[in-house]
Amino acid sequence: MAVKVGLLGLGTVGAGTAAILLDPAGRHPLMADIEVYRVGVRSPNKPRPVEIAPDRLTTDLESIVTDPDVDIVVEVMGGLEPARSLILKAIHQGKHVVTANKAVIARYGDEIFTAANEAGVYVLLEAAVGGGIPVIQPLKQALGVNRIHAVTGIVNGTTNYILTRMQQEGGDFEPILADAQKLGYAEADPSADVDGLDAADKIAILASLAFGGRINLADVHSEGIRHVSAADITYADQLGFVIKLLAIARRDTCPVSNEVLDQLQLRVHPTLVPKTHPLASINDVYNAILVEGDPIGQVMFFGPGAGAGPTASAVVSDILSIAASLKSQGATQAPNPLLACTHQHYCKVSPMADIVSRFYVRLRVLDQPGVIGQLGLCFGNHEVSIESVVQIDLHDGVAEIVVVTHEVREANFQTALDEAAGVCVHSDRAQRTAGVVDHQFR
Amino acid sequence: MAVKVGLLGLGTVGAGTAAILLDPAGRHPLMADIEVYRVGVRSPNKPRPVEIAPDRLTTDLESIVTDPDVDIVVEVMGGLEPARSLILKAIHQGKHVVTANKAVIARYGDEIFTAANEAGVYVLLEAAVGGGIPVIQPLKQALGVNRIHAVTGIVNGTTNYILTRMQQEGGDFEPILADAQKLGYAEADPSADVDGLDAADKIAILASLAFGGRINLADVHSEGIRHVSAADITYADQLGFVIKLLAIARRDTCPVSNEVLDQLQLRVHPTLVPKTHPLASINDVYNAILVEGDPIGQVMFFGPGAGAGPTASAVVSDILSIAASLKSQGATQAPNPLLACTHQHYCKVSPMADIVSRFYVRLRVLDQPGVIGQLGLCFGNHEVSIESVVQIDLHDGVAEIVVVTHEVREANFQTALDEAAGVCVHSDRAQRTAGVVDHQFR
Repeated sequence: MAVKVGLLGLGTVGAGTAAILLDPAGRHPLMADIEVYRVGVRSPNKPRPVEIAPDRLTTDLESIVTDPDVDIVVEVMGGLEPARSLILKAIHQGKHVVTANKAVIARYGDEIFTAANEAGVYVLLEAAVGGGIPVIQPLKQALGVNRIHAVTGIVNGTTNYILTRMQQEGGDFEPILADAQKLGYAEADPSADVDGLDAADKIAILASLAFGGRINLADVHSEGIRHVSAADITYADQLGFVIKLLAIARRDTCPVSNEVLDQLQLRVHPTLVPKTHPLASINDVYNAILVEGDPIGQVMFFGPGAGAGPTASAVVSDILSIAASLKSQGATQAPNPLLACTHQHYCKVSPMADIVSRFYVRLRVLDQPGVIGQLGLCFGNHEVSIESVVQIDLHDGVAEIVVVTHEVREANFQTALDEAAGVCVHSDRAQRTAGVVDHQFR
Repeated sequence: MAVKVGLLGLGTVGAGTAAILLDPAGRHPLMADIEVYRVGVRSPNKPRPVEIAPDRLTTDLESIVTDPDVDIVVEVMGGLEPARSLILKAIHQGKHVVTANKAVIARYGDEIFTAANEAGVYVLLEAAVGGGIPVIQPLKQALGVNRIHAVTGIVNGTTNYILTRMQQEGGDFEPILADAQKLGYAEADPSADVDGLDAADKIAILASLAFGGRINLADVHSEGIRHVSAADITYADQLGFVIKLLAIARRDTCPVSNEVLDQLQLRVHPTLVPKTHPLASINDVYNAILVEGDPIGQVMFFGPGAGAGPTASAVVSDILSIAASLKSQGATQAPNPLLACTHQHYCKVSPMADIVSRFYVRLRVLDQPGVIGQLGLCFGNHEVSIESVVQIDLHDGVAEIVVVTHEVREANFQTALDEAAGVCVHSDRAQRTAGVVDHQFR
């Protein structure tokens, strides 16, 4: 008997999903057993790239999640509501759920997975992170035999596109963002992407899977790329780095004993990545996720982070997993523990102030004798040991200075920066544009 | 009730596998339910890196595969026999099998999977290709919803290590091979690696999964790296390429109509890869597998291609998959179609002679007037259109010439080379050292 899918939404991803399901030839043989049974849309008469029989279309989305014949509800409408409520209602009706909605999962994952466990149903979300790249399933399954140390990703295509163009053209952020908006690579309101919020949602989801605990989204430190300038990129290049917006989830270690602690670092920020590092060569809208663990070492997954086809591929792969499980699982049997969500506790997250790293900062100061000495004092007063201070530009009596520190606590660095603001021309508080990474990126 | 594992072999990978299973803390919770029940070894008293209770060790491997309490037989002994016979006996006894043995699977996969289907058991082999990289499972599951066009891999760490060092040091093959042997990166008898046979085994397995059919290993064209010289690498570098030993499985297309045919190209050979291509930056012993399909586009998996820890991670991930399936699958239910092997037919493979590609060849000729004209005639006589002919070296009256062709049938190119041998100094038949790739590597 065919497995019946109820699709909520027939936008880009929804239409891509339907297109795969309606054309199973040349794909996994099990695909022929999956039926697009009902499709919920806002406007049933809108022309669409995929043909759905009119009697399968409805504007009544609730009727899909409560339809007793539907086995799997596929939520590809996006947005927080009514997506969240429909997912929860589907679960309460005993339906399995597939979703591409990172925002809902990152915010309401606790509520959703608790409900799913009680109902004994699966909630799968391969498409929520990394578009078409199979990363959620490997993290839950193949990589789960390892003790994961870190998951580091370039998980936002828009910012990676902008940074790649800044790198290649030597251009500044604002004009390239404007061009990316014109080309459809960035939204009219770009905040979710360029301020790192989308990447924060995604790293929260990845961390939850990698470290087997739930994540409070508010615990993820998130900093975007608005302050990265062409000068930063040029100077990083000279130092042997490229600047990437990295999303990092890492098991924290004691800075003194190096002992692994039962708490995580969770952060999104522009990062200087050595050019030889596997993540340094991930360009344009591509995404990549690097997983480090014991005993596997480093593995990386690379591919298209967005787009109708890749995202639909991920959605359908989840549908296929559930369909396969339904074919082999007895009615009275427990859910497959590799598909179900097993954890219930929240992960402890280290305060950002305690992170130890090397830092890079660019400051604008008046070009006058003693100013570098004054800067040095500001840093020294807070035990920030400096690796280099270099003047990279000078015009109109204003000098641009780049400071690279040795390893230091974030809190000390920030306090030193506050003090250094007194020496700076710029009325804004001095900005850290990128934490230089070293021992974390061999 | 614990899932009981019978381990055949306690060498590097076997000991790594036992080490993970005996120390489940911090890994997937289901790991605590997996027991190292019996371990087959040749010398029970040998000191080992992992402690196994003496009453679990045996030298009688047959007694493990016939033990009624064993659920999963894990074959990590390597070699063709008795590995093949023990795997078959385990299957006939209704045991699930996990193996890291690419040689056995590439040669006897037909026999083994036919037996497994009849017995209703799983035979999983994540460790057979790409060491720790999860690639077999994504190919069977998440990527299976796509129509796969091609799988292209750097799947042999030894040759990639040698080529990387040749590239970085400008050295020639023989001395670097000797050094690699000294360092333990190459075997005393390096043939399986440097002649491309190991890569052929692996691409046969990947092709079988990607294209849903069995592969006759004899159909895989395989050419190693012995003839690649420092001069080739330098010249490729000037042209914007690096030389990699690629294993390629690709759905063939009609060279005239571009229509996709129901037959595959299967080949292993040194290849000029554009420096901007994702596979170009995979260095040292690392492996990477690039999968291209519709609608996903390109995804790549990167990681350690060998080593006890990574390989053991892959072996244990298969054990975990079976254990999870046993926990959720009713006794009377069908096997999970995403874990089982579904295909039974053999794939049709295009003759190598019909492959259309650009080619690169380096020839040694006497430095005398007219010799390039003569070479040109040899190629022209067989409709091989030449893109460039460049003299790259001259000493002792012998000129080294590099010829790069436009797209041409392999058969025409080889016949032209045979004719060109008459002009060449070298008494050996002129060797193609690397096929230039273009439309296949955008």
